[in-house]
Amino acid sequence: MPDKRTFIGSCPAPIAAKDLIKMAHGGGGEASRQLIENVFVKAFDNPLLSQMNDSSVFKAGGSRFAFTTDSYVVSPIFFPGGDIGKLAVCGTVNDLSMSGARPLYLSAGFILEEGFPLAELKKIVQSMKVAALDAGVQLITGDTKVVDKGRGDGIYINTAGVGIIEHDLNVRPSSVEPGDVIIINGDIGRHGIAVMAEREGLDFETALESDCANLNDLVEKLIENRIEIHCMRDLTRGGLASALVEIASAGKVSIEFDESAVQIIPAVQAACEILGFDPLHIANEGRFICFVPSRQVKNVLRIMRLHPQGSEARVIGKAGKKEGGSVTMKTVVGTERIIEMLNGEQLPRIC
Amino acid sequence: MPDKRTFIGSCPAPIAAKDLIKMAHGGGGEASRQLIENVFVKAFDNPLLSQMNDSSVFKAGGSRFAFTTDSYVVSPIFFPGGDIGKLAVCGTVNDLSMSGARPLYLSAGFILEEGFPLAELKKIVQSMKVAALDAGVQLITGDTKVVDKGRGDGIYINTAGVGIIEHDLNVRPSSVEPGDVIIINGDIGRHGIAVMAEREGLDFETALESDCANLNDLVEKLIENRIEIHCMRDLTRGGLASALVEIASAGKVSIEFDESAVQIIPAVQAACEILGFDPLHIANEGRFICFVPSRQVKNVLRIMRLHPQGSEARVIGKAGKKEGGSVTMKTVVGTERIIEMLNGEQLPRIC
Repeated sequence: MPDKRTFIGSCPAPIAAKDLIKMAHGGGGEASRQLIENVFVKAFDNPLLSQMNDSSVFKAGGSRFAFTTDSYVVSPIFFPGGDIGKLAVCGTVNDLSMSGARPLYLSAGFILEEGFPLAELKKIVQSMKVAALDAGVQLITGDTKVVDKGRGDGIYINTAGVGIIEHDLNVRPSSVEPGDVIIINGDIGRHGIAVMAEREGLDFETALESDCANLNDLVEKLIENRIEIHCMRDLTRGGLASALVEIASAGKVSIEFDESAVQIIPAVQAACEILGFDPLHIANEGRFICFVPSRQVKNVLRIMRLHPQGSEARVIGKAGKKEGGSVTMKTVVGTERIIEMLNGEQLPRIC
Repeated sequence: MPDKRTFIGSCPAPIAAKDLIKMAHGGGGEASRQLIENVFVKAFDNPLLSQMNDSSVFKAGGSRFAFTTDSYVVSPIFFPGGDIGKLAVCGTVNDLSMSGARPLYLSAGFILEEGFPLAELKKIVQSMKVAALDAGVQLITGDTKVVDKGRGDGIYINTAGVGIIEHDLNVRPSSVEPGDVIIINGDIGRHGIAVMAEREGLDFETALESDCANLNDLVEKLIENRIEIHCMRDLTRGGLASALVEIASAGKVSIEFDESAVQIIPAVQAACEILGFDPLHIANEGRFICFVPSRQVKNVLRIMRLHPQGSEARVIGKAGKKEGGSVTMKTVVGTERIIEMLNGEQLPRIC
């Protein structure tokens, strides 16, 4: 809604489409990246924001902390394997974990639409409670706003989170070193396809559930076992492709990976083929990649495979030389493909 | 929007109005309180959340921190004296200050509606930048989501904030002691009336601007000067009345104040009389009350009056006996009136 004062005393020229927010600005791909760099980073320029990591790391009172935020606008709000409440807890817990922090506390800000059923709110809050217990975090501060009917979509939730970093690792793109091995904790694409199928009323022969889950316990196990994690990222909006491109770009390192090593279950593969989606760009909510020194790969795989969130862990690729920045995939037919961020919007409102 | 699966395979009975979210649930009055207690506190029950303060205080790494969140849905997004961006920074900075914390870092989560003009977003982000510089806080992490046209209202912003507590005071309702004096830093009602006037296109003879401002510098001056602050609260949604009732209830202490001591400028007074609003319930965004021992009142007034945000500071009342919990106003005509939280919604979407 344009500011109404724009229209007082003048007859404004129509605004060109390029100067309006479009769905792709929220898609986690190239348009999102441009908006963040040209508007937000430009205005709030500071070294912590410029880390461009899943969460921001700061020092205070002699300790290191991670701080992160995400708003959740997923549609529909209930989907196989989760709902907006579970997502709002797991998503923020995972963003803290990806910095190597132990998640401590969450905030929750609700924007409710007038007429939203209280029973659904209670169900969502219950999901948040269960997910917070599972992660061992406490929700300690909150806020509720109500907007007029037709100015929202039932419920939007923002969660912010604070975690503490209890080791000396600097888990971030710039810590990636040539030769680092990239490990993924499971198959990709389930969350995006599960939400999309629910939204569009599609049926699969086999049940397909979102992979939405807390990753903090698995990450803490890696850290307890002295794995020298250089970088981690969860594969949310924009999928595996965006995560790799962001790390390559921020870490100024080239990345290579094998298409054949990336596991995709048949239902996800089939849905992507029918709908023309690239599974590399589909959002996940319980999958992450980590960059570790090659000497620790066996140990990482052992730890991960013993954990429910990592039973299908595998190596997918490695970091090449510094000064690079490109992501190359060796395809199943033996050719090479340069991987880029998604242009445009593939699946809106996926988280 | 009800969950669409509610309608699959059954013809559900209509939901009674009492079981739906209404505007009053976001008004900061009695309905808000009930929603928070019956849904959120019930589910997330923990001692930190139950503090029911503007921000939650936790210990980590040997230090005390405050953590808070607010979503901003003000309509219109630009108003005399500020905009949604300035509000989103000042509001969260002030919530941290009210716990006696020095605000350090903010997060920002944007929910943008498809078609929102980029130029307006840039203007709002610029306001956030200016307000953050003024408060000395850094915005270090953020998130942007886009919702379809007709599922939002231009822009909603969530900010969360982290501050550090660098003294031994426990600034909270339970610290209020009988005999504590209540000091306010200025006149009330400007923010609510300024926003409402802009929304409704009302004109006043004199310019009326929101009081929206950062209060952290003034609060830090009080703490530096060793004022033994027992409790503070900013007078946002629900106004002075709700702040007093909340403190009386959470601190289990009775409160008395003088109507004649509460300053209201003529334009606000006139608008309230015409529109049937009670100025005690109108939202402010740069006003707060603090509870201090009577021996320090002169000192507090001296410090406040030297500060731009406290030039009109004055005593409005005092805390009575513990085990109380009621708020009584001595009216200008000498009678007494019990003050309660607002029932229903007076001014929706004021912050």
